[in-house]
Amino acid sequence: MSNSADYDFLAGVRVVDFTQFEAGPTCTESLAWLGAEVVKIENPRSGDPGRRLRAGQPDDDPYYFQQFNANKKSITLNLKEPQGLALVKDLLRKADITVENMAPGTIERLGLGYDEVKKLNPGIIYCQVKGFGEGSPYEANLAFDMIAQATGGTISVTGEKGRQPVKPGLSFGDTGTGMTMAITLLAALRKRDKTGEGCRLQVAMQDAMLHYMRTNFATQSRTGKAIERDGTHSGGGSNTPSGLYPCAPGGPNDYIWIMTSRANPEHWSRLCKVMGKEDLIEDPRFATTAARVKNEAEVDSMIAAWTKARTKHEAMSEVGGAGIPAGPVLDTMELLNEPSFERRGIMQVMPHKTHPVKMPSWPVRINGKPPTVKASPGLGEHTAEVLTGWLGLSADEVGKLKADKIV
Amino acid sequence: MSNSADYDFLAGVRVVDFTQFEAGPTCTESLAWLGAEVVKIENPRSGDPGRRLRAGQPDDDPYYFQQFNANKKSITLNLKEPQGLALVKDLLRKADITVENMAPGTIERLGLGYDEVKKLNPGIIYCQVKGFGEGSPYEANLAFDMIAQATGGTISVTGEKGRQPVKPGLSFGDTGTGMTMAITLLAALRKRDKTGEGCRLQVAMQDAMLHYMRTNFATQSRTGKAIERDGTHSGGGSNTPSGLYPCAPGGPNDYIWIMTSRANPEHWSRLCKVMGKEDLIEDPRFATTAARVKNEAEVDSMIAAWTKARTKHEAMSEVGGAGIPAGPVLDTMELLNEPSFERRGIMQVMPHKTHPVKMPSWPVRINGKPPTVKASPGLGEHTAEVLTGWLGLSADEVGKLKADKIV
Repeated sequence: MSNSADYDFLAGVRVVDFTQFEAGPTCTESLAWLGAEVVKIENPRSGDPGRRLRAGQPDDDPYYFQQFNANKKSITLNLKEPQGLALVKDLLRKADITVENMAPGTIERLGLGYDEVKKLNPGIIYCQVKGFGEGSPYEANLAFDMIAQATGGTISVTGEKGRQPVKPGLSFGDTGTGMTMAITLLAALRKRDKTGEGCRLQVAMQDAMLHYMRTNFATQSRTGKAIERDGTHSGGGSNTPSGLYPCAPGGPNDYIWIMTSRANPEHWSRLCKVMGKEDLIEDPRFATTAARVKNEAEVDSMIAAWTKARTKHEAMSEVGGAGIPAGPVLDTMELLNEPSFERRGIMQVMPHKTHPVKMPSWPVRINGKPPTVKASPGLGEHTAEVLTGWLGLSADEVGKLKADKIV
Repeated sequence: MSNSADYDFLAGVRVVDFTQFEAGPTCTESLAWLGAEVVKIENPRSGDPGRRLRAGQPDDDPYYFQQFNANKKSITLNLKEPQGLALVKDLLRKADITVENMAPGTIERLGLGYDEVKKLNPGIIYCQVKGFGEGSPYEANLAFDMIAQATGGTISVTGEKGRQPVKPGLSFGDTGTGMTMAITLLAALRKRDKTGEGCRLQVAMQDAMLHYMRTNFATQSRTGKAIERDGTHSGGGSNTPSGLYPCAPGGPNDYIWIMTSRANPEHWSRLCKVMGKEDLIEDPRFATTAARVKNEAEVDSMIAAWTKARTKHEAMSEVGGAGIPAGPVLDTMELLNEPSFERRGIMQVMPHKTHPVKMPSWPVRINGKPPTVKASPGLGEHTAEVLTGWLGLSADEVGKLKADKIV
């Protein structure tokens, strides 16, 4: 089953990874999926705080850490000791890329700001993921996913019409930001390969949210008004029908999204046929998109009456099968248990010593298959391997560093 | 102000771009921001359907198209004519990368499937963005952003507690998918540079959504239950307080997200001080995260009473200024008009001939500045330039192709 030769795109690329929690780790994990050697630098005491998400419990490797650190290595280093700092500088001399997402000013206080690291290695791609950008009114503030989604606008556009905003239920303030950095650093690496010249890259979570909201800004450019929430219908309001319709038996996620695109008038006529209402195709109240937008409430209630008599899967089979864009709302358990994801390698079981977990893998298939998941590292699991392999230290030297609590 | 030398990372990289609407164009636009020569292949009649988003109106360049096609070139080619097909094959011979996101089976029917293109150019990175993956039960179905978000799970986790699901208000089913492809193709290009070997990459929008939902799957692994909606509080329910609090004067987006991380007990004590309620810091009902989770309703109502007496900006100034993670909910108009975004280059005005528009730029800063926005192309604006530059055609030859309606 292995296609390791296919996904070793980044073989030989060395990443010194100071990231923690999610916005940074998603970036370096994407590199690890694609074959880079990503070495997490962790404090010997407890490591990435993402390892201990369950407050007050002796949880040293929860699922959260596993999912954002697949395929990486881990070494421990006490950066507050001069010897630890010297070792990480030696690693940075050998690295192609380094990424950090600490609180504002922290990496500089450690003596590992760009100006210092550039002196050690002028070709390094030095990457920083922050909550807010330099020059932002919130520049010195802390940020987490929800803060980025509040200040980046994604919360303002999410929710039911006329009701309060809600946070999109996924942490794409973190992961979405990490993805933009991964793209940029890989492009920078290509130039570095040609010129030897490194650079400093920075992305703020708030700023990255704007990039994901360009459709909203396009709509606003036309209407001149801030985007209003309408999370059970399509954005923009110019495709009708397009929305969530309730299905049997009425559970919390028994809904189907049915969409008819204004770019394809066939969608509406196909839907009428599926519902056994061919007479509506030419009915002037519904014959054009504009007419349907005007009579949306009536359109929606006819469709809902039809969907309520079916499960979401039955409705999907009929509507989707007739060439109308549609999709049942699938919950996280249904997704985890959907056999085609596992068969296709889109969900894979991490071969972890204590907590094997089925998780989403890198979604892009390379010559037909996604890369294979490898275990997330135990804290310091690769300390000896990396210090020996990258820096040429002997086993004795590593042993002494351990005894001295440097690693 | 220009730092063009800084962001020409992909100078010399040639992309034949068959993408349309958003999921594909976001991928190729990221390459264009970073200096690649991205040439859109458009049909001579009307081009990318994303150019005509307003049904029934003579809209040949709406803001939607502009925002997803900045910094690209456009040529027209009639791929249904043998001469047009021959020309695009010549372009593919000269390309490093090609990307398409047509309906299932369309590119193959044009005679431009991977097996064909590989024969023309074994080193090409051939990229496909689809709604559903090969082997999915919905493999042959059409998909749009909302369909990907329904079947990919993001809708199921978004909404108010105990109420129906809603679609996250941004089209990250499209843009989020495009980003994962951009990362993978840049990694593939690095290997191609070394070995000369190309490959076929495919991503499905449904599959990409799973990758952005890993936090949800991590939580589900712990609880054993499908994720329930709770969009006004933090996911997981183990940070209290963490949620949206209403502010004066009570408008639709007058809210602030305030978060106290369980990883930092100081957040709670700082918040108590800001609210003038130091006595609560040691109060056994609230002193620990576990106690606050238990008494969440009481905690929330105390905070809301305080936030309601302030605007979101006043609340942010006090809470954020005290070192507590917080962010006001900003709407799309507030974001567009926030002067620091324009000053920092995070929002830029596209220098477009007929519709100059301020839009979010590539969010990653390279040595301090984001890349500079260039106009999205008019339909066929670069036909002569590209056919001459890539293929060596003469002006007369291009003229004849125009007369024959091939271009």
